[in-house]
Amino acid sequence: MSDGVRIVEVGPRDGLQNERIAIPLEAKLRFIQSLRDAGCDDIEATSFVSPKWVPQLADAASLWPLLPAGPDYSVLVPNLKGLERAIELGVKRIAVFTAASESFTLKNINMTLEQSLEAIRNVIEEYRSTTPDGWIRGYVSTAFECPFEGSIAPERTIEVTRKLFDLGVDEVSVGDTVGAAVPVEVKSLTKMLEDSVPMEQIAYHFHDTRGTAIANVSTALELGIRIFDSSAAGLGGCPYAPGAGGNLATEDLVYFLHRSGVPTRIDPDRLAQASREVLALLGRPASAKAQQAQLSASGTSPR
Amino acid sequence: MSDGVRIVEVGPRDGLQNERIAIPLEAKLRFIQSLRDAGCDDIEATSFVSPKWVPQLADAASLWPLLPAGPDYSVLVPNLKGLERAIELGVKRIAVFTAASESFTLKNINMTLEQSLEAIRNVIEEYRSTTPDGWIRGYVSTAFECPFEGSIAPERTIEVTRKLFDLGVDEVSVGDTVGAAVPVEVKSLTKMLEDSVPMEQIAYHFHDTRGTAIANVSTALELGIRIFDSSAAGLGGCPYAPGAGGNLATEDLVYFLHRSGVPTRIDPDRLAQASREVLALLGRPASAKAQQAQLSASGTSPR
Repeated sequence: MSDGVRIVEVGPRDGLQNERIAIPLEAKLRFIQSLRDAGCDDIEATSFVSPKWVPQLADAASLWPLLPAGPDYSVLVPNLKGLERAIELGVKRIAVFTAASESFTLKNINMTLEQSLEAIRNVIEEYRSTTPDGWIRGYVSTAFECPFEGSIAPERTIEVTRKLFDLGVDEVSVGDTVGAAVPVEVKSLTKMLEDSVPMEQIAYHFHDTRGTAIANVSTALELGIRIFDSSAAGLGGCPYAPGAGGNLATEDLVYFLHRSGVPTRIDPDRLAQASREVLALLGRPASAKAQQAQLSASGTSPR
Repeated sequence: MSDGVRIVEVGPRDGLQNERIAIPLEAKLRFIQSLRDAGCDDIEATSFVSPKWVPQLADAASLWPLLPAGPDYSVLVPNLKGLERAIELGVKRIAVFTAASESFTLKNINMTLEQSLEAIRNVIEEYRSTTPDGWIRGYVSTAFECPFEGSIAPERTIEVTRKLFDLGVDEVSVGDTVGAAVPVEVKSLTKMLEDSVPMEQIAYHFHDTRGTAIANVSTALELGIRIFDSSAAGLGGCPYAPGAGGNLATEDLVYFLHRSGVPTRIDPDRLAQASREVLALLGRPASAKAQQAQLSASGTSPR
């Protein structure tokens, strides 16, 4: 917790997973080390998905024992096979995922929504029985908009969110996977969620595809949400729109929070340094996002 | 007016003025024609500044008589010399500019704030006496943050805004020139402005340098502001950070408004087309912003 607001840094997992350039284990560790040095204390480090699905994260099991001490690390776990690896390594924080849209789960993980919840039930039961002190996050993707179905009614997102809590997750991250949501939608979903789920266990995961991410954070923050996901340098994002704005950049989130009078433990200059390093690694040293990172770290922010 | 919200398209002036590639008159006219076809009905077309300052807009007097009929066009006028050209051409909408920060006016236009207001007084008196049906917009730059002085107290912005109204402008555009402001600042400035100036004559001019522009628009909209400046494809912006996010992109503004249930007369697909054309002209066909424009124009917006 960073004085009220918790930032979950998803760069090493969500950010890197769609990158085509193979990133060596050493470089990933340096990136995570830099994030830690910048003050990121909650990092989604990698994923125990099949290397066939996500070759970039095939080194997950090698990475895990080498992570620098300090932050809380979590790992994405798609199924019982991935969970086995997590349990073997003693992982204490896992994340499971599904979506509010049936079409999305079918195309993304080749399961119906019902099947995906059933798979999550099995993962949670197994994890709880072997790891009583384990902590579980659930992701609900396409919470506002599905690339295949269009707008998603809040009722559908709420139903899936509630089912995840019923299955025993400790927190749900509600994701605007394609970056379509605007504040009126965030307001209406948040107010409806309030009636049925514990608000202090809700995170929002916004994408800045169309410039609305900070507006959505601002609205959610006003309504009492205190957990936000973001990715250093805005890495990652919607695979359906390569090159376009992806995850909310941690730089922008931290800038917005600090300037709004909400302190965090993250040092913007060191964060910009971490972003510069990973962007250079990915062959994007001069991207606008890197400059933006430096701007967001610049002295205009009253820290 | 577009059903309540008026969008002032500043791309042809504010967007192009810092571009290094010389854009032929023909291409500028095509750009403006495309903006008109997209539904932009209020366009800042060019500037009667000295060609020495802004070579890109040296063709202002040639451009003016060729503008396609339909939209309201305005022209930036820095001084009496520029005004003479405007009067000769029968321009009915001019814009004058100053800033909330003394250091900025000194470095930007080599005048103290007082001198710049005096120059504006002369321009307004002359314009009113020769053009009784003329309309005048005033710009207040660095309204929240100055690149030289840092944070600007709202009182200073309000003082300059009020002085501009006292001098007889019809509207003031309050500009976050470096793109530093966050919603709490917009809220506090807007509420303070409410007490001293006519709110229906206030426009906001946000930059998206750090991802906060739509959040600021959203906040201002909630507080009753109905005039927003933006630039197609986000062209233009802070000369101190070339390549980084600049003006709020009209695409993002229109996407946000439409998705929020606020209609405008702008057609996102045609706007994206105008942006693609001008970006290609500037040698930036594959920029993330161009893709973003297409995304913002995509069918996910419930029009």
